[in-house]
Amino acid sequence: MKRRQFLSVAATGLAAGALAKPAIAQSMPEVRWRLSSTFPKSLDTLYGASESLARYVSEATDGKFQIQPFAAGEIVGTFQAFDAVSNGTVEMIHGPGYYFLGKDPAFAVFSDMPFALNARQKNAWLYQAGGNDLVNQFLAKYNVHAIPGGNTGTQMGGWFRKEIRTVQDLQGLKFRVAGIAGQVMAKLGAVPQQIAGGEIYPALERGTIDAAEWVGPYDDEKLGFAKVAPFYYYPGFWEGGPAVHFYFTKAKWEELPKHYKAVLEDAAARAGMDMLAKYDARNPAALRRLIGAGAQLRPFSLEILEAAYKAANEIYDEISAKNADFKKMYDSLREFRNEEYLWFQVAEYGFDTFMIRTRSRG
Amino acid sequence: MKRRQFLSVAATGLAAGALAKPAIAQSMPEVRWRLSSTFPKSLDTLYGASESLARYVSEATDGKFQIQPFAAGEIVGTFQAFDAVSNGTVEMIHGPGYYFLGKDPAFAVFSDMPFALNARQKNAWLYQAGGNDLVNQFLAKYNVHAIPGGNTGTQMGGWFRKEIRTVQDLQGLKFRVAGIAGQVMAKLGAVPQQIAGGEIYPALERGTIDAAEWVGPYDDEKLGFAKVAPFYYYPGFWEGGPAVHFYFTKAKWEELPKHYKAVLEDAAARAGMDMLAKYDARNPAALRRLIGAGAQLRPFSLEILEAAYKAANEIYDEISAKNADFKKMYDSLREFRNEEYLWFQVAEYGFDTFMIRTRSRG
Repeated sequence: MKRRQFLSVAATGLAAGALAKPAIAQSMPEVRWRLSSTFPKSLDTLYGASESLARYVSEATDGKFQIQPFAAGEIVGTFQAFDAVSNGTVEMIHGPGYYFLGKDPAFAVFSDMPFALNARQKNAWLYQAGGNDLVNQFLAKYNVHAIPGGNTGTQMGGWFRKEIRTVQDLQGLKFRVAGIAGQVMAKLGAVPQQIAGGEIYPALERGTIDAAEWVGPYDDEKLGFAKVAPFYYYPGFWEGGPAVHFYFTKAKWEELPKHYKAVLEDAAARAGMDMLAKYDARNPAALRRLIGAGAQLRPFSLEILEAAYKAANEIYDEISAKNADFKKMYDSLREFRNEEYLWFQVAEYGFDTFMIRTRSRG
Repeated sequence: MKRRQFLSVAATGLAAGALAKPAIAQSMPEVRWRLSSTFPKSLDTLYGASESLARYVSEATDGKFQIQPFAAGEIVGTFQAFDAVSNGTVEMIHGPGYYFLGKDPAFAVFSDMPFALNARQKNAWLYQAGGNDLVNQFLAKYNVHAIPGGNTGTQMGGWFRKEIRTVQDLQGLKFRVAGIAGQVMAKLGAVPQQIAGGEIYPALERGTIDAAEWVGPYDDEKLGFAKVAPFYYYPGFWEGGPAVHFYFTKAKWEELPKHYKAVLEDAAARAGMDMLAKYDARNPAALRRLIGAGAQLRPFSLEILEAAYKAANEIYDEISAKNADFKKMYDSLREFRNEEYLWFQVAEYGFDTFMIRTRSRG
């Protein structure tokens, strides 16, 4: 609103309450929302994105738009969060799509699944190659709108009590791993286990399970797995670049003033960038400490990676044959991926390769 | 301002003009700034970050904070831009620090120089490891404040008329390359050339120069170098992750309302993320077209990379011995880099390696 307009409205002597929409209320209305994270506070980098977003939105609106973040379980649990935003119990949630895979495997495509995209490529697909438009076309049926809000970077492959070298070593292995990665592991002969974060350590210690994947060095360190399952495998090929989204009840999103939507989009981009930068800044020292505490780094063998790649493609074909939403997003992502690595293998990989080689030689 | 407060102010009958600072003006004052980009409009991804930032800021403030972007040369030229923001001729500029290397080599540390950080690591250093605080401590002496605003990703090493395999092949080579990379190349026996973008093609065609570096596939394609210097080398080891900043006249920055500063920080993060995502989305197809047009990809040999790495470290030691600002930032960046590659060589590199291998095998 221009100041001159404000003055003339004031000068008319009209009580603001008599106007359907006072100009001041249009410009900076007070809005209070609740944001339910799917993460516990102990995952401070993931949960922290909700705190960052809330702070950025408040700061950018001079305190007028207040978003209160809640940890998983404070209002709704992790896996109930999507229903809560879909039916308007909360205005917003934050989490990776694959937490809601039980509804539809299509949720995995835009978050992560085996052998997809690394973090930069995921951002490029979502923001600059129509990826997030496909996400919102898909989510419209749930009355949900989503904006990307972070990425962890490539995760680790998890903690194993014994070394695994071949597909044969995976037979009967009780592995705490979820979603499509769990299906891939099952095809390879392992037995996927569903266990909440807090129960992983005792299960590994007792040998109830043989292996468990969590996130990466910074988050894994807190749970102390190195003591009970010291073989720390990489890469987490099912999470090459896991994207996390902010999801909004669509009607709530749509009734926001246009500039509050813009503030949210800017703040989500910044909070998302923070998340990746925090992981990148904190993982190295955590990895160093983990190795000091007994973790033994092991790469997955080419035999295992190739068998998993084949199994993943079979699963994608099976799902695509009966699920048009999955197929539409997956076809877009796969075509994009094949082009991306044409380029990434040149300058980016060439630079990193020399830097890694130089570092390891001191 | 709470609506109740607004009503009570209006109800007093005080003319808003009689108040020293009308609440509305405090809340959403009209601000108009000029932003001089150091890039021409033809570099649409780099110049585009200024357009994006201006749009995001306008949208987030309901049109109240208007920033008008200008291309290099419209108000001031590329290399004069820093003086213009330092003395307040314009409120803002956008560009990589190394454009202002003539003032102080310290400008290279936070933008890019040979064998530094890749794009994600640069973001992590700037945002999460105190890097940008060091930048602003350094820039305070110029009355300038800066916020990160984009990265191109690893650039290419440039276009060469003949293949170069050894350091011997670099002797006397007239190479259009600037800054510290130029000093490294000079140590290796090449002759760095300073030529504006528009003059590179005819100089390569006539053989006045032997080689030239520019950006990467998407930008290089527009200048048609493949026809006259077909050997396209990688990686651009002097630009592993070039950061671009938005710079503000410090007094202008400080007099902004707090929430407009927040809007600018959010918008800069989003515009910066856009830039990297655009390059990542557009480079693959451009590379494909360049190869179709005759470009021949060549990696720099290990001999050349190692000689360049040694030369770069000698230069850094020389500068550090006499320049405390450079030393302070460089020491921070170098220590961070060595830790980063400890981690990046594990999960990230392991994932990319398998994906690249799988792609090249079809």
